[in-house]
Amino acid sequence: MIDRPRYTIGVDFGTESGRAVLVDVADGREVGIEVEPYRNGVIDTRLPAPDGDVVLGPDWALQDPDDYLEVFRGAVRRLVAGSGVDPAQVIGIGIDFTACTMLPTTSDGTPLCFLDAYRRDPHAWVKLWKHHAAQPEADTINRVARELDQPWLPRYGGKISSEWFFPKALQIMRESPDIYRAADRLIEAADWVVWQLTGRETRNNCTAGYKALWSAADGFPESRFFEALEPGFGAVVDDKLSRAIVPIGDRAGGLTERAAGWTGLLPGTAVAVANVDAHVSVPAATVTAPGTLVAIMGTSICHVVLAETAPAIDGMCGVVENGVIPGSFGYEAGQAAVGDLFAWFVDKAVPPSYHDLARSHSVSVHEVLADEAAALRPGESGLLALDWWNGNRSVLVDADLSGMLVGMTLSTSAPEIYRALIESTAFGTRVIIDAFEAGGVAVDQVVACGGLPERNPLLMQVYADVTGRSWRVAASSQTPALGSAMFAAVAAGPPIGGHATIEHAARAMAHLRAETYEPTPSHRPVYDALYAEYVRLHDLFGRGADPALKTLKRLRFEALDASNAAETAAR
Amino acid sequence: MIDRPRYTIGVDFGTESGRAVLVDVADGREVGIEVEPYRNGVIDTRLPAPDGDVVLGPDWALQDPDDYLEVFRGAVRRLVAGSGVDPAQVIGIGIDFTACTMLPTTSDGTPLCFLDAYRRDPHAWVKLWKHHAAQPEADTINRVARELDQPWLPRYGGKISSEWFFPKALQIMRESPDIYRAADRLIEAADWVVWQLTGRETRNNCTAGYKALWSAADGFPESRFFEALEPGFGAVVDDKLSRAIVPIGDRAGGLTERAAGWTGLLPGTAVAVANVDAHVSVPAATVTAPGTLVAIMGTSICHVVLAETAPAIDGMCGVVENGVIPGSFGYEAGQAAVGDLFAWFVDKAVPPSYHDLARSHSVSVHEVLADEAAALRPGESGLLALDWWNGNRSVLVDADLSGMLVGMTLSTSAPEIYRALIESTAFGTRVIIDAFEAGGVAVDQVVACGGLPERNPLLMQVYADVTGRSWRVAASSQTPALGSAMFAAVAAGPPIGGHATIEHAARAMAHLRAETYEPTPSHRPVYDALYAEYVRLHDLFGRGADPALKTLKRLRFEALDASNAAETAAR
Repeated sequence: MIDRPRYTIGVDFGTESGRAVLVDVADGREVGIEVEPYRNGVIDTRLPAPDGDVVLGPDWALQDPDDYLEVFRGAVRRLVAGSGVDPAQVIGIGIDFTACTMLPTTSDGTPLCFLDAYRRDPHAWVKLWKHHAAQPEADTINRVARELDQPWLPRYGGKISSEWFFPKALQIMRESPDIYRAADRLIEAADWVVWQLTGRETRNNCTAGYKALWSAADGFPESRFFEALEPGFGAVVDDKLSRAIVPIGDRAGGLTERAAGWTGLLPGTAVAVANVDAHVSVPAATVTAPGTLVAIMGTSICHVVLAETAPAIDGMCGVVENGVIPGSFGYEAGQAAVGDLFAWFVDKAVPPSYHDLARSHSVSVHEVLADEAAALRPGESGLLALDWWNGNRSVLVDADLSGMLVGMTLSTSAPEIYRALIESTAFGTRVIIDAFEAGGVAVDQVVACGGLPERNPLLMQVYADVTGRSWRVAASSQTPALGSAMFAAVAAGPPIGGHATIEHAARAMAHLRAETYEPTPSHRPVYDALYAEYVRLHDLFGRGADPALKTLKRLRFEALDASNAAETAAR
Repeated sequence: MIDRPRYTIGVDFGTESGRAVLVDVADGREVGIEVEPYRNGVIDTRLPAPDGDVVLGPDWALQDPDDYLEVFRGAVRRLVAGSGVDPAQVIGIGIDFTACTMLPTTSDGTPLCFLDAYRRDPHAWVKLWKHHAAQPEADTINRVARELDQPWLPRYGGKISSEWFFPKALQIMRESPDIYRAADRLIEAADWVVWQLTGRETRNNCTAGYKALWSAADGFPESRFFEALEPGFGAVVDDKLSRAIVPIGDRAGGLTERAAGWTGLLPGTAVAVANVDAHVSVPAATVTAPGTLVAIMGTSICHVVLAETAPAIDGMCGVVENGVIPGSFGYEAGQAAVGDLFAWFVDKAVPPSYHDLARSHSVSVHEVLADEAAALRPGESGLLALDWWNGNRSVLVDADLSGMLVGMTLSTSAPEIYRALIESTAFGTRVIIDAFEAGGVAVDQVVACGGLPERNPLLMQVYADVTGRSWRVAASSQTPALGSAMFAAVAAGPPIGGHATIEHAARAMAHLRAETYEPTPSHRPVYDALYAEYVRLHDLFGRGADPALKTLKRLRFEALDASNAAETAAR
């Protein structure tokens, strides 16, 4: 038995589907993959049948926890059955999730939305990461935190997002006291899923640290702070959460009989502590030590870098001890619109000829644009953009900023703008790298993963040129699921064929693509000059010296308010 | 005979064609119109057959003077013949032209390009207004004018354009001394055409004043200045031009037998002194007195306003005494890209859905965009643009500036950008109006003419809202030709049924459309706030405080140079 290959399963819970990968523990080979789209997807207009008459407010985004279980009953079962692998050879399973995605449950873990008494209340359902309706609660938290000079605030760039755990929890309490009262537990969906697999509530330190203001050194914020947010909220941690936070890399438990039945795996199979999709990608991109930034590049970019110590860095999203790799501090930073920005451009600002060309060559519009854009020299377009179409996450932490494009002439073309937008996101990345290095966190090289790098070599080369660093690309197209499978191998441990540490797992199971994007020496001076312009405009418009963007935003909201008032009056 | 209606003909020589209108002198009714496309159009790549092997340099733009004569032999002849009007009822003919459009001729007015000895030299042909190959000569003129502290320089905003008369003349001398030597005359095409009609060289004060540095008070610049530009060029005025400059509104002469034969008109029919298309539009837009700005709106905007005195105004294109209406000073200012900017947007940055919608409704893409844009409230898009896609003419006089768009989000749509571009050109107009008023030249209201106003009511309303002034629109779609017909009526004079002055002609023959665009009171505060942002960014990026646009331009030229060098090396 010890000579047969060992496998683990990693399950990546995304926004629209769950994706399960069966991986060879020895070398990371991905033996099989199965995807399970969520039946109820993102619930953002009305509750699912039979409660479709319950309409959701703007900015709401819910999910159905049964859709998560279906990933095990469907995708994982098919994966095991279809692989021809003996379930005894599958030594562990690990999961990662979007975050913060959270739900209220009873003390035995039953989601309140499963109960007839509560299911017509939208607050009984899972609040998905992109549920943005808790902005008033986030505003309260940020204001009170500043007033009470909370020591954790600097760890999060001075401001937390409406997407995080406590804004969502506070929204439940304020808007649905019944649900808040009925909720024995408020829990990350990641941890709820592990609870369903193991029969035991286990809370991971990654979501706790990055989304719920927890740290190994200080625990959660004090009760006095929560009570100051809303009378009665002071006991939220002791009443609804848990102060027992388990580090990633640990074994959460073994598969219950019931969960084994869903999946076709053996009861007792090791289950890893849950993780977050971006953070779990880091070891899957081969990175387990300081000095290498991991850029998870998709609609947005999440940047993770490890450090031995935790100096204060301007405008990162968070720093968590043991939050990414046990034994180091994991810093997270972010750019709010990258793939989304290019998608906006293609949808909203590219004329028909490029769409026609793409159709006639059966390629994407992105490829057509990138092809022409690649023929341009740096600086040739005369264009420069500030990439703030969705605000600025790092290092300015300001959602109210907006985009800017400078330098257009009557001969400016779509490929020129496309390249300028790519360059602007690269400049944004360089600002983040510069902030890390200025704060004492080394960034010697970069590994990229996610959807963008493999589709867009021009983008990778521009990023290398602009940042002056080597960029490599993770070999796997499924880095989150691979990372979860790696943590599963660690949870299983060496005695049954797993790995002793995540570093061991990374050495064996994680790989890079052969190609390296090296900075082009002749491009560096031009990009340095353009970057100097970018930084000056970045500081001018982003740090308050010029009020244009704020004024435009204010006038926009006033116009929309006037518009709404006129509509209301007309009714 | 005196009871029969009297008519005049106005001929507008445009860039691609000549357009002749037959107008009733009593009320300005346009009885007929005929258009003659130029057979050789704009000559910008190679000379016409049989000399098609002669290739032109970049930025060259020539025309064939025979194409101008064909307008009389074709369009005017058809107009007269087709109107059923007795030629004896046609009491005058007037013309206007693009400017500076100039050519070298012999002493009898024969264009050098008509002569076999010279016709293969591109410098023998007409240099069209948009011939931009004399930029080095314009640079020399501007430099030397500053060095010699020339008193005329402030009248032209401190800088002249490569399009003007002396850069073109100097280019001929530098690049083709033979042609320069053979040219007994260097003359505006406008004046050359009048010469062909009357048999007599007559030079108008409008082109002399706006394009050739002449003024009634000071004449041309001193010989010493011209000699400083290039040895031997000092005598250019006395050798090739004439110091006899005739005011617009005068009678240049009567039709020769030959010209009468071309047109079907009677020999001796009054011919008016030539005029410029923009300036001749002013009385045709009913304006003959100070206080009303005329905005000639097409691919660009030319602004003309009259004044009793001539205070120095920042950044106008020129101020000429009697240059537009005898008895007042005519100020000209300009915006370099207006219709061109909207056309760029539609061609280069509007996605397929709007093109499809336009096609399915058989309307223009502009109309589809304007329709959606009109539903937006001021400020609602959150966008603001600097309209410098073709540099800035007034008030910054800086061709090296480029455009800027600020405030984009992931939901920014094409109609929102379209409206922001319209608003930006309106802000540009307001800057010019503010400069006039700050200098003591009143602008109480505006009359628009040209192609844009009648096609785009949204644009007119935005201009009224932004400038806080009433905007009216000239009734005629052919204001230049109508204006020429009006000056023809003045040249004919009252004894034979014409008008005594251009003011009389305007009262009788020029009209406004019924509709008035009044500023919307509720829009004013928002546009004042947006204008304040515009002005701050305008001064920040346009007056040198922030170097971004200049740096981008420099990097662009360096990249293009490197690109050209690489291509040359590869050959």
